[in-house]
Amino acid sequence: MSVSSVSSLAAAPSVCAPLSVLGRDVTVPLVTGGEVTYAALDYAASAPALQRVWDDVAAYAPYYGSVHRGAGYLSQLSTDLFENARRTVAAFLDCREDDQLVFTRSTTDSLNLLAAALPAGCQVFVFETEHHASLLPWREAHVTYLDAPRTPAEAVATLERALADRDPHGPALVCVTGASNVTGEIWPVRELAASAHAHGARIVLDAAQLAPHHPVSVQDLDVDWVAFSGHKLYAPFGSGVLAGRADWLRQADPYLAGGGASRKVTRRTDGGVDVEWHETAARHEAGSPNVIGAYAVASACKALTEAGFDTLVAREQHLIDTVRAGLAEVPEVRVLSLFGDDAPRVGVISFVVEGWNSSHFAAALSAEYGIGVRDGLFCAHPLVRTLLGSDPQTQGECGAPEAAPGEKSLNAIRVSFGAGTPDEHVERFVRAVGELVRDGARWNYRTVDGRCVPVT
Amino acid sequence: MSVSSVSSLAAAPSVCAPLSVLGRDVTVPLVTGGEVTYAALDYAASAPALQRVWDDVAAYAPYYGSVHRGAGYLSQLSTDLFENARRTVAAFLDCREDDQLVFTRSTTDSLNLLAAALPAGCQVFVFETEHHASLLPWREAHVTYLDAPRTPAEAVATLERALADRDPHGPALVCVTGASNVTGEIWPVRELAASAHAHGARIVLDAAQLAPHHPVSVQDLDVDWVAFSGHKLYAPFGSGVLAGRADWLRQADPYLAGGGASRKVTRRTDGGVDVEWHETAARHEAGSPNVIGAYAVASACKALTEAGFDTLVAREQHLIDTVRAGLAEVPEVRVLSLFGDDAPRVGVISFVVEGWNSSHFAAALSAEYGIGVRDGLFCAHPLVRTLLGSDPQTQGECGAPEAAPGEKSLNAIRVSFGAGTPDEHVERFVRAVGELVRDGARWNYRTVDGRCVPVT
Repeated sequence: MSVSSVSSLAAAPSVCAPLSVLGRDVTVPLVTGGEVTYAALDYAASAPALQRVWDDVAAYAPYYGSVHRGAGYLSQLSTDLFENARRTVAAFLDCREDDQLVFTRSTTDSLNLLAAALPAGCQVFVFETEHHASLLPWREAHVTYLDAPRTPAEAVATLERALADRDPHGPALVCVTGASNVTGEIWPVRELAASAHAHGARIVLDAAQLAPHHPVSVQDLDVDWVAFSGHKLYAPFGSGVLAGRADWLRQADPYLAGGGASRKVTRRTDGGVDVEWHETAARHEAGSPNVIGAYAVASACKALTEAGFDTLVAREQHLIDTVRAGLAEVPEVRVLSLFGDDAPRVGVISFVVEGWNSSHFAAALSAEYGIGVRDGLFCAHPLVRTLLGSDPQTQGECGAPEAAPGEKSLNAIRVSFGAGTPDEHVERFVRAVGELVRDGARWNYRTVDGRCVPVT
Repeated sequence: MSVSSVSSLAAAPSVCAPLSVLGRDVTVPLVTGGEVTYAALDYAASAPALQRVWDDVAAYAPYYGSVHRGAGYLSQLSTDLFENARRTVAAFLDCREDDQLVFTRSTTDSLNLLAAALPAGCQVFVFETEHHASLLPWREAHVTYLDAPRTPAEAVATLERALADRDPHGPALVCVTGASNVTGEIWPVRELAASAHAHGARIVLDAAQLAPHHPVSVQDLDVDWVAFSGHKLYAPFGSGVLAGRADWLRQADPYLAGGGASRKVTRRTDGGVDVEWHETAARHEAGSPNVIGAYAVASACKALTEAGFDTLVAREQHLIDTVRAGLAEVPEVRVLSLFGDDAPRVGVISFVVEGWNSSHFAAALSAEYGIGVRDGLFCAHPLVRTLLGSDPQTQGECGAPEAAPGEKSLNAIRVSFGAGTPDEHVERFVRAVGELVRDGARWNYRTVDGRCVPVT
């Protein structure tokens, strides 16, 4: 199963159970009385831990020990487990033999690390449609922001044109998301990688939204680096990943300066200090590593692989179809899309509801139905504004706007789900959207400290 | 209980039980046959999780949700819990009302963040005795490395002299550890802070080794910032802390560029991108925060406070006295010290054994006694070389040296412990040192992949 072939998948019935996740039985109070099982539909922000990941962490935790130079049994066990986690995740990503895999804290951290490792004079090409983690880290470099394309082919053509104009002799990097955190649409990564390489540029895949939903093969997609976050991949223990070409990473200054990254530190006779840095992944992992976080990511990679992406993708497609079909029946709902209805996508769908403030709508979904979605601009301000057709100068604050019912929405609502989502959650969501639009909210809401809450 | 008053503590009998930690019942195999309860004596590298911390994390984990703009019940609960964790840790550190507290990943990360936030032209003063996390992050600044002092008073005098020589009009920062990660000796932080402030400089306290053992009051010590790691404070879930003055942090470029740190991102008509950054702690916390890690740190802070530092310090002093008295009875052992026998200290003691390679000794402690210590230069190369009186050019690699028995040691051995350590662990350690020195190892060891292991 590759990213490009996902569009040919027929909608399959939901033939398998969701993967077991923590919180699956948690109930929350409704403002209208009673309790209901919480429907976590904000996976694109952060997903619950797989039960399997939690069980692995719980089994390991008593054996936790200081890694690297610890001489004790648990230190050596923990060191081996940490380095095995690195190999497991590299295999999950189908990395090349000589790739480096650095454990970071998140996708944001991974891309900031790569940004700090760019060779001098490196040009960066990034679509304005990226979320801020991919859009903003390239502070030092010469960045070209590419306009939002309206088809995957236009994305490739836009990149082609931009790369053709560049100085072909200097280093260049393209940064592209695998799947949009706003529309869920899958980007033509393999084609963009081919274009980048044809022009002597490199490419990093932001797989934050892709890796939890689809297999990602560094070799098959032919990307130079890939970044993702554990907390979106059912392992919310503070670790992320950057994996790929070793050369730029080896030549760069250490991302953090400190122990673990330094091989030898000596005081010079003139009073200064000389440092020899490691050239392995340790170069960018100064400080004690987050062993539990790395182990959790590896556990999630194993669990997803063993569940089988064919099955997971088919099941998720059924959920996507349920949500999209349900939303399509409500004329007041407008789903946000760059690439149109036929684009392959993951379980991330954003929309606005005519006549509703999005924060108000999201608050009602929570308070009246026990459904957790997200409202706002999803840390992808330029993209959401483009999709909303709104004026960039008058809106887009990340704080919630006033949420008076009936006010025109300035933000959007996002529903997102994955391997742990039962059918009932998306069915409840579809029913709730229909009822809210038809009947209105049953409660009043107001904004308190930037949060839209029921008036009590 | 303040840091300065600890030296007046009489050695108390161990009147209370150790705090319950994970792994307290883990047994490990001995090379000589049988199993034994693992004695984790490498707390200075990383400490086991408090049972209370684990219980808190386990209780919260099913309620984990995406923070900040998530509209669902668990998202709002998690957001509140994350911000409450910030307040709990700030209270633990006795921060000033207007201080900022940033959740980082570790002390190393905290100090790299502060290094990235230094005002232009800032001079940095740091003793060569610091571990690499404090010694190395100041890459961009003008750094003055101060020679190792041999008394606390000499430390203050050395800093005084250096500060008197500086340009008094520019910004300056002193970075000092609260307790050495090699000798365990407590530094005269309050006096160094007074000296720094008298010369118009600021000071950051590296409390990585102090905070797990002693109360740290930002206001009482009058330091401008404090940094520590969760994983040394019985909360090994990937979070650390930088807390202190808001002004430099607010004026600095965001540590990571990405979502969460950005308030508003707009595409300009000329094709570029404008960013408004937050001025709160969020400015330096881009990406999804490690909520479980932050919650674990807050849980540990609460647990230590509730156990009471008076009790914890008295108990630890008893363990320190046991180890030091035991080592003093073995003439072949030389304890490494800067400040001498009377210096107040935490439960961190480094030593060498005449006629023994330290890696070999540490391996025998593990394989024959089930005791986990550390050997090496403890990511404080200049200090350990100074204490060993060794040639900086011929040794000091962080890889283990050859471990042939009888060879002169190039590295040291470190034993360290804390609130979770039972008396039996340090008693076993003292007995083991005596037996190994008197009778020799009962097994042969060799170095495999940089690790000294029993020959099987």
